[in-house]
Amino acid sequence: MARKIVYATRRERFNAAHKLWNNAWDEEKNLSTFGKCSNPNWHGHNFDLFVTIKGEPHPDTGYCMDLKALRDIVSKYVTDKVDHRNLNLDVDFMSGIMPSCENFAIAIWEQLEAPIQASGCDLHSIKLYETENNIVEYFGPVQ
Amino acid sequence: MARKIVYATRRERFNAAHKLWNNAWDEEKNLSTFGKCSNPNWHGHNFDLFVTIKGEPHPDTGYCMDLKALRDIVSKYVTDKVDHRNLNLDVDFMSGIMPSCENFAIAIWEQLEAPIQASGCDLHSIKLYETENNIVEYFGPVQ
Amino acid sequence: MARKIVYATRRERFNAAHKLWNNAWDEEKNLSTFGKCSNPNWHGHNFDLFVTIKGEPHPDTGYCMDLKALRDIVSKYVTDKVDHRNLNLDVDFMSGIMPSCENFAIAIWEQLEAPIQASGCDLHSIKLYETENNIVEYFGPVQ
Amino acid sequence: MARKIVYATRRERFNAAHKLWNNAWDEEKNLSTFGKCSNPNWHGHNFDLFVTIKGEPHPDTGYCMDLKALRDIVSKYVTDKVDHRNLNLDVDFMSGIMPSCENFAIAIWEQLEAPIQASGCDLHSIKLYETENNIVEYFGPVQ
Amino acid sequence: MARKIVYATRRERFNAAHKLWNNAWDEEKNLSTFGKCSNPNWHGHNFDLFVTIKGEPHPDTGYCMDLKALRDIVSKYVTDKVDHRNLNLDVDFMSGIMPSCENFAIAIWEQLEAPIQASGCDLHSIKLYETENNIVEYFGPVQ
Amino acid sequence: MARKIVYATRRERFNAAHKLWNNAWDEEKNLSTFGKCSNPNWHGHNFDLFVTIKGEPHPDTGYCMDLKALRDIVSKYVTDKVDHRNLNLDVDFMSGIMPSCENFAIAIWEQLEAPIQASGCDLHSIKLYETENNIVEYFGPVQ
Repeated sequence: MARKIVYATRRERFNAAHKLWNNAWDEEKNLSTFGKCSNPNWHGHNFDLFVTIKGEPHPDTGYCMDLKALRDIVSKYVTDKVDHRNLNLDVDFMSGIMPSCENFAIAIWEQLEAPIQASGCDLHSIKLYETENNIVEYFGPVQ
Repeated sequence: MARKIVYATRRERFNAAHKLWNNAWDEEKNLSTFGKCSNPNWHGHNFDLFVTIKGEPHPDTGYCMDLKALRDIVSKYVTDKVDHRNLNLDVDFMSGIMPSCENFAIAIWEQLEAPIQASGCDLHSIKLYETENNIVEYFGPVQ
Repeated sequence: MARKIVYATRRERFNAAHKLWNNAWDEEKNLSTFGKCSNPNWHGHNFDLFVTIKGEPHPDTGYCMDLKALRDIVSKYVTDKVDHRNLNLDVDFMSGIMPSCENFAIAIWEQLEAPIQASGCDLHSIKLYETENNIVEYFGPVQ
Repeated sequence: MARKIVYATRRERFNAAHKLWNNAWDEEKNLSTFGKCSNPNWHGHNFDLFVTIKGEPHPDTGYCMDLKALRDIVSKYVTDKVDHRNLNLDVDFMSGIMPSCENFAIAIWEQLEAPIQASGCDLHSIKLYETENNIVEYFGPVQ
Repeated sequence: MARKIVYATRRERFNAAHKLWNNAWDEEKNLSTFGKCSNPNWHGHNFDLFVTIKGEPHPDTGYCMDLKALRDIVSKYVTDKVDHRNLNLDVDFMSGIMPSCENFAIAIWEQLEAPIQASGCDLHSIKLYETENNIVEYFGPVQ
Repeated sequence: MARKIVYATRRERFNAAHKLWNNAWDEEKNLSTFGKCSNPNWHGHNFDLFVTIKGEPHPDTGYCMDLKALRDIVSKYVTDKVDHRNLNLDVDFMSGIMPSCENFAIAIWEQLEAPIQASGCDLHSIKLYETENNIVEYFGPVQ
């Protein structure tokens, strides 16, 4: 029988500092590779994070997942750890990871996949706006 | 031979009242489940609806489907029925359905699939913004 | 000596139901005046509220007023009372007032003026988006 | 082993004139088909173009592709050719093509696919907003 | 006695072609002054127009002015004349006027002032977005 | 004779790091006053800056001021100095100034007033979005 799978998305926002800097490289190579994104004293962004889960609406509630519960999971595992923080220095789950928007989206996926699954839903995608012009999206690992 | 399938989207907007309330439950269970969304005297939203169809552009017009024709179908089968209405009380195609955003998107799909098909196109997805933070998307039933 | 007055704005959002209905009129006159805004079973909106205060930045903090404190005042006197509510039925400070966007903005001003003044700042304006197309702004009473 | 494919998007904007007009038809048929979009003296739009590439983040940079490099490719092959131009008259890669939004998105894909591939990445999609209400997306030819 | 003046705004949108070109100048001077805005074959924009009126809410309706009536005035005197048109060639009230955004806003004011006054309200301002980055506002002539 | 004064606005964007920290206070007082805005390792924002000038459109061009010239002034005196920088450490014109949004708007005014005046126009206002919820505006010193 056909299943009615709905994709539900919660947007959260946070403001963080970071820089792109490869410690294996000297300053010149960092600057020529990353340009102003490697400013030694950091820069920052208002990040817009869209977390999408998928599932069938429950007959009692019409919810795939209560988006307030999703918001609480995103707060606990991501937003509370990164909001008004430095992604290079302050965030446990970014330790040792170059904080490009791409790597950051992957790391957010890895933070959220298990707790969302534990709540009975499936994580579908992480979409992250670094600016209105630069956006990344990640759907989990593929074979 | 390869086909050039384009996905074309029309946005429509409407303003409606609703509440989340399960008649099989008492007030306490409704409140503990749905929180302020179960306010007995209703609340409401500006809904943003994105209807996406897919097809090959016609050689004469460059259109998959005239988006003015799509707008007219969406108006007739959805917007005219829900704009400035109460989703629980006033809308024939929501009768007996918990008006969560998820169920509402499914019901909109079921309203639009046949008339869009009758116009020679395929409905691809229904995306519905309840707020800037809460969004659902539905791509039709899957096996 | 010249003073450096800055205008600082906090945006808050809420979702409410309402209808435009004049009890002194019969249904026909209500419908002909207010159109679909008078739907008996209500409709609703995502309201965007911009509250602007003015003052000189404090030398210790650089703040005219801590916008978190402003947010708390707006929550206590407005948002907590109107979010997920019915403006005609559920809101003490709208009792007996036709809930047009214009009257609503005036009423919000009257709710906020005293507590903002008590915090040492001046309220400058209330701007209220009912939809992306319909917006009102109020600057307080004038002689 | 599982691969971590990220989709990265660059938004670019441009302003162009066009009209929808089929030279094989007389004026009456053009007007009845395209309505005001066939105004003989043109009309125009602010187009928002979202170009999405996909790939695995490079271990040295965390980038799938430097989005500044993507911006430069989009500028060279698309934006510089269409910004403040007439799509019917001034644009080499639209010559002989009805400038519907659908055909325009396909033509942009065909402009960008090779240079993006030459830079070592894969083009995933072209998304084009003609207005806030009319949007098309193209993912390349399918079998 | 203090009066409660509210400012009410209606947003309308339209898409038009134009170019900046001074007939008293040769092509070289036009190009050096206006750059790509002087492209001989035109370019175009999605214009966002915000028309603001002011007045006291009427005790019967809570309206300064029915925004549907304002929308109809704006349609009749502005939008219907400029939407999907060429500002240099097709618009009676722009005849002989350099269609810069500044002059266009003034001309829109002059179109709307009398009919809005005839409806018993005062026009307060015309705000016009040519792009998300270029915006003009006009409040009428000053002494 | 009446003058037709138009207000023209240019939006520019930049991304910067900062923290709110008063060196005259200990860490506890900084934290209790500024909360997470005082995170020692910084945080950051995408700032949206709207610079508004006023003047009469020139009869030859229809411009109050060429907005490309305004953009160049804003770039030279503000954006180039703050984009991808640390407002506390890297910006000459913010040296010794608590980088609250209020003080930052005042400092930007003071950077721009003279060069805009030198170009023959008057600066009217600086509007600065720190987030979509927190906004300040400054109109220059008043008596």
